[in-house]
Amino acid sequence: MSQTSPGHPSSPESPAPAESSALRVAVLGAGTVGTEVLRLIAQQRQDLAHRIGAHLEVVGIAVRDLTRDRGEHVPAELLTEDASVLVREADLVIEVMGGIEPARTLLLEAMAHGASVVTANKALLAQDGASLYEAADIHGVDLYFEAAVAGAIPLVRPVRESLAGDRIQRVLGIVNGTTNYILDAMTRTGVSFDEALADAQELGYAEAEPTADIQGHDAAAKASILASLAFHSRVRLSDVHCEGITEVSAQDIAAAGRMGRTIKLLSIVERVEEETGERISARVYPALLPEEHPLSSVSEAYNAVFIEADAAGSLMFYGQGAGGAPTASAILGDVVSAARQRVRGGVGPRESHYAELEQIPLEDLRNAFYVSLTVQDRPGVLAEIAGTLSGNGISISTIHQELLETPEGEGQQALAHIGISTHRALESAMTASLDVFSANSTVLNIDSVLRIEGD
Amino acid sequence: MSQTSPGHPSSPESPAPAESSALRVAVLGAGTVGTEVLRLIAQQRQDLAHRIGAHLEVVGIAVRDLTRDRGEHVPAELLTEDASVLVREADLVIEVMGGIEPARTLLLEAMAHGASVVTANKALLAQDGASLYEAADIHGVDLYFEAAVAGAIPLVRPVRESLAGDRIQRVLGIVNGTTNYILDAMTRTGVSFDEALADAQELGYAEAEPTADIQGHDAAAKASILASLAFHSRVRLSDVHCEGITEVSAQDIAAAGRMGRTIKLLSIVERVEEETGERISARVYPALLPEEHPLSSVSEAYNAVFIEADAAGSLMFYGQGAGGAPTASAILGDVVSAARQRVRGGVGPRESHYAELEQIPLEDLRNAFYVSLTVQDRPGVLAEIAGTLSGNGISISTIHQELLETPEGEGQQALAHIGISTHRALESAMTASLDVFSANSTVLNIDSVLRIEGD
Repeated sequence: MSQTSPGHPSSPESPAPAESSALRVAVLGAGTVGTEVLRLIAQQRQDLAHRIGAHLEVVGIAVRDLTRDRGEHVPAELLTEDASVLVREADLVIEVMGGIEPARTLLLEAMAHGASVVTANKALLAQDGASLYEAADIHGVDLYFEAAVAGAIPLVRPVRESLAGDRIQRVLGIVNGTTNYILDAMTRTGVSFDEALADAQELGYAEAEPTADIQGHDAAAKASILASLAFHSRVRLSDVHCEGITEVSAQDIAAAGRMGRTIKLLSIVERVEEETGERISARVYPALLPEEHPLSSVSEAYNAVFIEADAAGSLMFYGQGAGGAPTASAILGDVVSAARQRVRGGVGPRESHYAELEQIPLEDLRNAFYVSLTVQDRPGVLAEIAGTLSGNGISISTIHQELLETPEGEGQQALAHIGISTHRALESAMTASLDVFSANSTVLNIDSVLRIEGD
Repeated sequence: MSQTSPGHPSSPESPAPAESSALRVAVLGAGTVGTEVLRLIAQQRQDLAHRIGAHLEVVGIAVRDLTRDRGEHVPAELLTEDASVLVREADLVIEVMGGIEPARTLLLEAMAHGASVVTANKALLAQDGASLYEAADIHGVDLYFEAAVAGAIPLVRPVRESLAGDRIQRVLGIVNGTTNYILDAMTRTGVSFDEALADAQELGYAEAEPTADIQGHDAAAKASILASLAFHSRVRLSDVHCEGITEVSAQDIAAAGRMGRTIKLLSIVERVEEETGERISARVYPALLPEEHPLSSVSEAYNAVFIEADAAGSLMFYGQGAGGAPTASAILGDVVSAARQRVRGGVGPRESHYAELEQIPLEDLRNAFYVSLTVQDRPGVLAEIAGTLSGNGISISTIHQELLETPEGEGQQALAHIGISTHRALESAMTASLDVFSANSTVLNIDSVLRIEGD
């Protein structure tokens, strides 16, 4: 990367800023995203200088392995293992290393030494965003993180700036590409979760260690960030109720299809108005959406986020939620914002948590459910199950019963499968009903319990 | 509107800013949007104060008719006919009066007196944005206009900030709700343009004087704003090639349907890479989109914008493009941004036109076309038409011929309708072909010429 030769001559009418006015940029991490960030900074050198009012000068790239060749955009002479020294020299620190430590310590150090920070680290923000925000505030620097939620899709900026004069009621998002890819494959081809996961891993859509994605932790981190921004309250990762997609079966997908629905892993953040005031909810789980809902048609590894606000109405944002180049695009947008503030003075948006809205526990939420049971096929079983639900105040919307193939041999009992969808009811009422089913010897298995959303 | 009683008590942890730190807000215009802006400012008084760090105090509302009752959110004691005096007293001017004058003079006056400006005035920005930007620059104030393009959909901020580190190739947008409503109605019900327009007027989706919408002028203004932001170049309304939807017939809609396509009025801004460098194009016309294109399913008066950028890939934004509350939501977001800058120092984004990319004239563009002709049904006519097209370097993709009902009576000629879709060809080649058809007595009428986009 040549730091001195301009990419192309600039026109006489609009000279590029002088090289002397360069901002010192440190990049922490040089994986897929870091490499793309460095490529964009090099390739768009002149454009970025015009847009910022100063050149960006990459002063160092912190990596764990100095010996690996990382291609032309990651020049060996800029590599360093000593990130801690590097961040003290920078005006702007781009953090794409991921993980909690040493990322947190490095970012706090960077801000203490007066650097603004651009990060894609959703896990860190979800776990300890408050201390990062606080450091930015104390040291008068900026903290930007557009790439932490939904990759290339502009979402943080719209939620915390464009909708800052509105009242967000609800955000419903597909914000994890891996799980969407898996569920989409299951829906298209009818394969099992395990098969779809193996396929996704082979094609590079899922990591070899896929836990954070398939257990919903990644989507939950993003939900905590979105909820904090949308409701001007602090919502931590530990506040987010989280269920992954590992229990979603080919049978669930088929049953959803029969009901005209698609199963998607949703990050939901919601304002719940109650007589006593309002509380908020942030949760992640696989849910059945109507096929005509805009989120149902989001295929492969794409992300999409649906926002409902009082004045704006319904908004939807769609795009690539991961990948080197899309994530780097979001990071570069933040870099331009943070760098402009450096050049022109002023500070970017700060943490806004004045509302301090309380969180509603899952059991107090009202949801519609799909419940699938394997039962003994004997008279009265349906009435019994319906009775349990209605006894807990849950009203049934549809019911689907299907005799299972009876295993051969004498003395084998006949089995049936029952799929029930309910109207909205308290989560606690569903939990109580499931407890009764578990204790009922006629119910051989609770195959699945999924929420129904988007109606 | 009570300016002194707080909406609800704030928590001791996060006290609202003191009343003494109020920012003085002037509102120009109190129509549908202005009234909604005033309602949101009043209803969200405490929230806005927390988000901004200061209270907003509406010091005056400029209207043409002081006597009209405008409801509780537009207090009579704040009305004034003297906008020129009002704007000199304000820290922040919200302009929702529309039109070129007196809006331009008032905004220039406001900025000269140190006020930041939030406007929804697409016509003014498209015609003379440069002088507004220049005034903001000279006087060190902000100019925000999220509401000028696609109403509630955050689009200006994503394009000029989130994508500031990327390279936008193309924006394809449905940014006029009235024309989308009309075309959608024609597609759903098969009615003529005139019937659909009358229906839209009755339902309030089209104005009594619909010229600016149906002739595409409104969409063209938005295209000029988007092109300027996307390409860091000045693109004025007069630079935008503009065709409206008044010539779109029920036959065109039906023909598009047979081809698996939908007709939409598109605002297109595009970077065209050529051997000699790159040029840009901004244009508005009705075009045939594949039914599976995301923009094809945008129904009624909704807006949606599709963006292609080098690193981010494809992004789509969807929502309400007009209406009092959605437009007010976009304005309030800008008000919060501009007000925060006031409280904390610093300035918002400035005009960026360093690239000064040249515009490519329409005739140099390469487009795919749908051409519909009424011809005499005699041997060789198809060969003649195909020959004209191929002689001009245009290659045919599909052709559809249909005998028209021959009028009764001796000596009446038999007529046929020919619908041709072409591969991409120079606009100038199509113009030359159409000239030949016009001079050919076998071609009785050129019924329509539409572009095909989105493949």
